[in-house]
Amino acid sequence: MTGRPTLAVVGATGAVGTVLLTILSQRADIWGEIRLIASPRSAGRKLAVRGEEVEVVALTEDAFDGVDVALFDVPAEVAERWAPVAAARGAVVVDNSAAFRTDADVPLVVPEVNPHAARRRPRGIVSSPHCTTLSMIVALGALHAEFGLRELVVSSYQAVSGAGRAGVETLRRQLSLVAGTELGTGPGDVRRAVGDDTGPFPEPVALNVVPWAGTLCDDGWSSEEMALRDESRKVLGLPRLPVAVTCVRVPVVTAHSLTVHARFEDEVTVDRAREILATAPGVVLYDDPAAGEFPTPADVVGTDPAWVGRVRRALDDPTALELFVCGDNLRKGAALNTAQIAELVAAEASFTAP
Amino acid sequence: MTGRPTLAVVGATGAVGTVLLTILSQRADIWGEIRLIASPRSAGRKLAVRGEEVEVVALTEDAFDGVDVALFDVPAEVAERWAPVAAARGAVVVDNSAAFRTDADVPLVVPEVNPHAARRRPRGIVSSPHCTTLSMIVALGALHAEFGLRELVVSSYQAVSGAGRAGVETLRRQLSLVAGTELGTGPGDVRRAVGDDTGPFPEPVALNVVPWAGTLCDDGWSSEEMALRDESRKVLGLPRLPVAVTCVRVPVVTAHSLTVHARFEDEVTVDRAREILATAPGVVLYDDPAAGEFPTPADVVGTDPAWVGRVRRALDDPTALELFVCGDNLRKGAALNTAQIAELVAAEASFTAP
Ligand SMILES: NC(=O)c1ccc[n+]([C@@H]2O[C@H](COP(=O)([O-])OP(=O)(O)OC[C@H]3O[C@@H](n4cnc5c(N)ncnc54)[C@H](OP(=O)(O)O)[C@@H]3O)[C@@H](O)[C@H]2O)c1
Ligand SMILES: NC(=O)c1ccc[n+]([C@@H]2O[C@H](COP(=O)([O-])OP(=O)(O)OC[C@H]3O[C@@H](n4cnc5c(N)ncnc54)[C@H](OP(=O)(O)O)[C@@H]3O)[C@@H](O)[C@H]2O)c1
Repeated sequence: MTGRPTLAVVGATGAVGTVLLTILSQRADIWGEIRLIASPRSAGRKLAVRGEEVEVVALTEDAFDGVDVALFDVPAEVAERWAPVAAARGAVVVDNSAAFRTDADVPLVVPEVNPHAARRRPRGIVSSPHCTTLSMIVALGALHAEFGLRELVVSSYQAVSGAGRAGVETLRRQLSLVAGTELGTGPGDVRRAVGDDTGPFPEPVALNVVPWAGTLCDDGWSSEEMALRDESRKVLGLPRLPVAVTCVRVPVVTAHSLTVHARFEDEVTVDRAREILATAPGVVLYDDPAAGEFPTPADVVGTDPAWVGRVRRALDDPTALELFVCGDNLRKGAALNTAQIAELVAAEASFTAP
Repeated sequence: MTGRPTLAVVGATGAVGTVLLTILSQRADIWGEIRLIASPRSAGRKLAVRGEEVEVVALTEDAFDGVDVALFDVPAEVAERWAPVAAARGAVVVDNSAAFRTDADVPLVVPEVNPHAARRRPRGIVSSPHCTTLSMIVALGALHAEFGLRELVVSSYQAVSGAGRAGVETLRRQLSLVAGTELGTGPGDVRRAVGDDTGPFPEPVALNVVPWAGTLCDDGWSSEEMALRDESRKVLGLPRLPVAVTCVRVPVVTAHSLTVHARFEDEVTVDRAREILATAPGVVLYDDPAAGEFPTPADVVGTDPAWVGRVRRALDDPTALELFVCGDNLRKGAALNTAQIAELVAAEASFTAP
């Protein structure tokens, strides 16, 4: 291959795809052509990337001709069908869906934590973790490298954009119906006001929190809870790590938050934990409650790092830390991580050699 | 004493007081006079209780003349000053503030869990736990009685009415400013839109979650986190129970939610846990995710019980359960529990004998 590699963005019109185009416009420009792909519904639309208007093409086999790296930001069933097609045409696929994350022949990569894993990709596919995992795993990877992780108990506060454009539209519509009212004080009054159309959520999400994300798995677990456990284990290389998690949706547009109770091999100190977090790439320590400093989604949305606050040592266990972690689910949680993986892949000898 | 006991409600005009008057109007009527007390600002206002209009009187020593039980729903500093005054006049005080909860000579009572504790009250004062503790402790008490609790890891999703009327007004005002906009997608855009007046919260609470509740204690812990630990230990009679907790405020008007990771002495089964929760007084098991059944604050607000859903056994620890618990912070979380304690006290021989 000569010159700069060609990048394809599959799903360029979606919630993640839209943010990806912004990110590609902001990062160091290493790409030759950037090709935008979506469903036939969007073919012919023009979207801005790197300051240029680029026409969207429909997803077909030929759309991958000459593509070196293909970023997939489409529903899992679309990725499942089309990622192997792109790989067969010679593109390295970086997939953002759940389709391949637990496939043993597909690495699951977070560049700050396990960059080396991206090199072994027997199927020509690299997976990016779920946004909830990504919002916390960079900070945990840094702490694990020093202290050795033994157990995780996690609760999530997930933004509606984790469910795509439809999630955002649903919250905005419901907020318009409940704002300026006295709703939220009687059983079911919010539900009656917002009507039966709860969008991608099983319950109203305005003036509410919903303890469910994803589909039903065995024994009452949700798919997003299982994903957080499986993916944390795979990215950290700890296949038997105990992980207990409850996923909850909250009325926030973008940026997922998590409370984390992390137990380590030996005693930890808050001072050392703060040093690690303050210097870890991709992490911002924002933790001074006396000065009112802790991350909230409204403040971190639109930024790249994982923000960590409320760092405390468990009062009854000197080996455990409590954290509150916040990250933009559309940036590091999705688009940014795939852009970083694509850059990792592009930097390999096979790509940079003329 | 002859006839029915006299009840005083101190703080009858507040968020909790208002709900208490409704509850007193709904429960079996065991009281003689119900006297309504608030600050001099409210003296002369008329409030409805048991279908009658009752005039509010100002808080003075004389206001407690002839009072058998006095329910205090006022700020802690007001309770600290006035509860001993009421007790000295012969009233049994049931206090809802933080003033006496950790006092070794003041029992902390949840009638479903430790009713006996209400009988030993050397200071003539009984305390009711913080609303966050109350939202989960009835369910945990039932599980503890069977399985023996060993450890708790808890995260909260706390409603704004936990911060009183000012909390509710703040959320409603902020919602009116953000509804119908595209806010929530850029760093700080919500904060700029709602302005500097964040009410009783350190950050905007609309389109946001705020990992802070209460005041700053040692080592970065918040007072509400410390309260949940101290009070769970005291109510359950487990003075050394390890409790790790992070308290987070969410844009919900009323009803607190909590995720609970509870570890027990021996192996537990989900079937037995569900049996216990389905039959425990004050608890509703609402747990069938296949049918879309799990509690949410918007559905349980205005109801009395603790609602429990998402019951799962930890995948990596057969001694631990995961739960999602939801309860109305103004009813069981405050007003109802004090009304129940008052009924317990009134049922004692000394009160019922002529
Ligand atoms: N939202 C998040 O926080 C997040 C985080 C991490 C990962 N993810 C994953 O990223 C993927 C995209 O999510 P999203 O939230 O961006 O979804 P979205 O807003 O619904 O966008 C879906 C995208 O896929 C395209 N698409 C749908 N069906 C297609 C088909 N048959 N052929 C070609 N293109 C098709 C759509 O194109 P049209 O506009 O032409 O329909 C659109 O560009 C999903 O797998 C999701 O699970 C999302
Ligand atoms: N909100 C909850 O979920 C919750 C739950 C459990 C416990 N609590 C506790 O219950 C107490 C009341 O909380 P809230 O949320 O109801 O507060 P609130 O809405 O602010 O009401 C405060 C009440 O106290 C009265 N008051 C204030 N200063 C007074 C004074 N100097 N003398 C006499 N009365 C005075 C007020 O009377 P005026 O109207 O005349 O000012 C009002 O009735 C607090 O200690 C709180 O921590 C609250």
